[in-house]
Formats: sequence, C-alpha cells, structure tokens
Amino acid sequence: MDKDSGLTIKAARREERSASAEALLNATAQLLSEATTIDVSLNEISQRASVNSAMIKYYFGNKEGLLLAVLERDAETAMTALKALSEMDIPAQKKLKIHINGIINAYYRSPYINRLIHYMVESGSPAASKRVAQIFIEPMIEVYRDIVAQGVREGVLKDVDPGLLYYCLVGAADHIFHAGYSVPSTLGVAKLDDGIKQKYAEMVCDIYLRGLAP
Amino acid sequence: MDKDSGLTIKAARREERSASAEALLNATAQLLSEATTIDVSLNEISQRASVNSAMIKYYFGNKEGLLLAVLERDAETAMTALKALSEMDIPAQKKLKIHINGIINAYYRSPYINRLIHYMVESGSPAASKRVAQIFIEPMIEVYRDIVAQGVREGVLKDVDPGLLYYCLVGAADHIFHAGYSVPSTLGVAKLDDGIKQKYAEMVCDIYLRGLAP
Repeated sequence: MDKDSGLTIKAARREERSASAEALLNATAQLLSEATTIDVSLNEISQRASVNSAMIKYYFGNKEGLLLAVLERDAETAMTALKALSEMDIPAQKKLKIHINGIINAYYRSPYINRLIHYMVESGSPAASKRVAQIFIEPMIEVYRDIVAQGVREGVLKDVDPGLLYYCLVGAADHIFHAGYSVPSTLGVAKLDDGIKQKYAEMVCDIYLRGLAP
Repeated sequence: MDKDSGLTIKAARREERSASAEALLNATAQLLSEATTIDVSLNEISQRASVNSAMIKYYFGNKEGLLLAVLERDAETAMTALKALSEMDIPAQKKLKIHINGIINAYYRSPYINRLIHYMVESGSPAASKRVAQIFIEPMIEVYRDIVAQGVREGVLKDVDPGLLYYCLVGAADHIFHAGYSVPSTLGVAKLDDGIKQKYAEMVCDIYLRGLAP
C-alpha cells in the first residue's frame, strides 16, 4: 500500500465515522420528535440509524453525551440564525417578529428541545446543566439585551428586563408544543398542524409587539 | 361502651385518618416544592409527614395516586378561585389581570405543578392524563372563553381563540418557575424571590392587557 492510498483510506474512514455519528444524531432527533417523552432507548436509536449501538459509546460516551450532542447541534443552528438576525440592519420590531416566528418554527419542528433541556438539567450531571445554559440561554439573553436596547433607541419598545422577557416569550412560544398532549382538550383537534402553528405564531407576534410598545 | 362513645371513637378515627392523608399530601407538596424534579421517594414523604409509609398505599394506592391527589387538591383551590373570578361583576380586563397574578402566584408557591402535570401525562397512565385535562385544562378553557367573550362585548379584547390564548398565557406565566434552574444565567441571581416574581407579574400583565386590546 503506497502512502497516497493509505491517506485515502484514512480519509474515507473518517468520513464514514462522521456519517455514522451524523446518522445517530439524526435517528435520535427523529425518535425524540415522534415520542412524547425522552424515553428513547439506545437500541431503538441504533436500529433507526442502522449503526451498531457500540458506536454510541464510541462517539458520545453514553446516552447523556448523545442527547447533549443532539441539543448542541440544534443550539448551533438556532444560535447562528439568532446571531445573524441580531446583526441585521433592520428595525428592532422586525427582528422581534422574525425571532418569534423562528422559535415557534424551531419548537414545532423539534418539539423535544425544551423537554430535553429539562431532562438534562433535572437528571443530567451539573456539567450538562451548565453546558445547556451556555449553549442555549446565555446567547439568547445577549441578543434580547441588544434587541431591547435597539428598540428603546428607536422608540418602539419599552425598556424591559431582557431576562424576564426571555421567560415570558420563550414560555409563550414553547408551551403549546411542550404541552402537546392537551391539544384535544384545548383546541378540539387530535394534533397540531401547520395551520394552527401559523395562527399561533401570528397571535404571539401580535400580543408581544403591541404589548411591548412604549 | 355505649352507643354515643362508639360513635365518638369512629368520628375520631375518621378525623385521624383524614389528618394522616392530609399530612401525606402536605409533605409531598413540600418536598416537591423543595426539589427540582419529581423524584421524591415514598420514604421521604412518609418521614416528612410522620405517617407510616403503608398509609400511602392505604389512602392513595401508589405513588401515582398520591401525586394525582396532590394535583387534584391544587386544582380544586385554583379552579374554585378561577370560577369565582369568572362570575364576578367586574370588567374583563380586570378579570384577566387578577387571573394572570393568580397563576403567577400559584406557580411561585407550587413550582412543581406543571412539572407534575407533565410527569403524569408522560409517565402516568392514560387515565391520569385524562384526569389532568379534566381538572386543570378544561375548566380553564371554559373561563378563558367567557372572559374573551366578555372583553369582546366590552370592546377591550380582541376575539382570540381561547385555546391558543391558554397556551400563550400559561406558558408565559409558568416558564420562569418551570425553568428555574436557569435563573443565574438569565437574571444574575441565585434564585427567584418575591420582588422578581412581582416584577414579572407586572410585566406579563402589561404585555397581555395591551397586546390583547383590539
């Protein structure tokens, strides 16, 4: 075997490895989206991913590591978009509207996000809790601070505490998905769909944009 | 033993029994308030209540029965107050304001309520899920429907879907307590106190009353 083909094999193996890790992350996210709890077994995950379950230990250490990696991937996508939004040269109210639609869409697509955050925080290690705060909460508070400050300068937003606004807004955006079990009692339908999600996003935007005006 | 003293002994026993059940419910609510998860053991509960743990089985069947009884007691208090509010002869906006303060105070006092609801729904039996919807959600939706209809007649509220309003408002009221672990990252304090709770309630009232105006 010459040096070049050795390198090619190594590169191919690296790609295969990262494809397996990716498949495990995708399978976990899929199974979590389908379930109403985070009780998804490593067996189910490896079967769905068509990847040997020993690979979970190899890539992620254990189930906590795998779940944290799923959250990190979701956080990276969400926070990259949020940071870009924050830096855009558009009015603060427009930013807030795009952000509200963005988080409602994210929770609709991945209803497990807040469930998983709570699980990591309540049952995971203190290190996992800290990591969750670092990847999800701290970047959001920073952006909320910037958007509120911009809105105050533009005369379109009240000078509210960004931390309190975080709870108020994230709670409103998330609860319909987090408490999805109750949809038959509240809305008289079997499950949420695009139409309801859209109507909900419009209502939340309307309440918050007008409710936060000075 | 004459007939009268026999009756007195029976009444005393009944009272003692209900005092034990009450002590178990109080101990459970206390322990749940102190914890950040619903992982409270039957042992801890019986110790805190100073009641033999066999009495849990006797009164409540099992842990699910005990937790459901705690929720039912909280629901009864909350729903009695909500029903009375709904029937009061005051403007719809005033009702909404009292209600928002009421749920924020309830979650502050008993931060385990929504955690317990989710636990019952996710890990409990289908019968427990149905019961939770019956005792908590259905009465709230009914009151929301009445308040929105009154507010529309009075020209002070938009004609929003009461079910969607439920998620939006309950999510906003609850999230700061449900996600209490994140308070150091968001607000820079170790834990919530009366002052923050009060400030939060004022912000939520302000956003929702102005945000829901026509």
